[in-house]
Amino acid sequence: MNERLKKQLDFALEIDKEKSIFRQTHLSGHGRNENDAEHAWHMALMAYLLKEYANEPVDISRVMLMCLIHDIVEIDAGDTYAYDEEGLKTQKEREDKAKERIFSLLPDDQKQELMALFDEFEEYETAESRFAHAMDNLQPLILNNSNNGEDWREHAVTAEQIYGRQSKTRLGSETLYEEVTDRIVQEHIEKGNITSV
Amino acid sequence: MNERLKKQLDFALEIDKEKSIFRQTHLSGHGRNENDAEHAWHMALMAYLLKEYANEPVDISRVMLMCLIHDIVEIDAGDTYAYDEEGLKTQKEREDKAKERIFSLLPDDQKQELMALFDEFEEYETAESRFAHAMDNLQPLILNNSNNGEDWREHAVTAEQIYGRQSKTRLGSETLYEEVTDRIVQEHIEKGNITSV
Repeated sequence: MNERLKKQLDFALEIDKEKSIFRQTHLSGHGRNENDAEHAWHMALMAYLLKEYANEPVDISRVMLMCLIHDIVEIDAGDTYAYDEEGLKTQKEREDKAKERIFSLLPDDQKQELMALFDEFEEYETAESRFAHAMDNLQPLILNNSNNGEDWREHAVTAEQIYGRQSKTRLGSETLYEEVTDRIVQEHIEKGNITSV
Repeated sequence: MNERLKKQLDFALEIDKEKSIFRQTHLSGHGRNENDAEHAWHMALMAYLLKEYANEPVDISRVMLMCLIHDIVEIDAGDTYAYDEEGLKTQKEREDKAKERIFSLLPDDQKQELMALFDEFEEYETAESRFAHAMDNLQPLILNNSNNGEDWREHAVTAEQIYGRQSKTRLGSETLYEEVTDRIVQEHIEKGNITSV
């Protein structure tokens, strides 16, 4: 087998580990914690289904690919909960190291391509990255909503924390922010599942 | 919220159930059984990484989308193991019913679009569907190979059964069939993990 194909298969096997990185979000039906691979699959499909609501025209295949790879670094760096203040301080350093190690398994051209796409996601500067981030926020929101806000209650998350993160959904989709995010968050504040300070 | 967006979100929540449909394949490192959502995520990424080996030029975003949705019907129909002769007899009927119910949650235009893509995958007639099927075969193969063929041993699968299924990988990619599939299968026949009759 040639070296190029061998590297591609090594990478393909390595990313299997993403299925063992668990998030704070629970599956609908008060299920178990969700893992990164499931989250990425769900986000990519939601991006395709909801693409008509993007603020700007997007290349949807780039958005989907971004969704599929955006958590690969967590194989080494672990999942950092959106409202974990301590973890967030070291997140970038941990993820940069992981990015270098994991994408280096690929042939150089694919390493460069996927690292650039990963960086694009992180930088929020393109229409595609902003819409992918909107999905990254919306996907756990609909699960948590279906579970009567149990993840928020468990972590005693405040409205301020949620709006701090979820307001970025606006950058990708005003419509989804107004029609979905804001409505759900308001409803759970009223129900007392989210602490309003 | 308008009816269209409500339908899209209902579908997005419904497909969360795919994360609870478990396959016979085990994660690498002799891990637990894999579920359909993880499998679909892995296949879609492998399709992107290995697209240069497709027999014919493919629209890779169609291939990826096909990979992401191809097992949605299993939410109702369950997973049918590739070598389960009895299950295979009723598979089509179970999956047709499921397809109608699940995709009908979507607005009609998206229902028609995704059902057509699902059918295209099933029919093996386009370059995209053949390459997506190659990924459907290759993805569990590399996991099982990494686990020293434990899934084959557990089910006492024969070389004839494996070649019956895996030979279709050829239709999508001669290179991957020769360089990966055939080599791995031969190796596991030699090791005695696959029964050669």
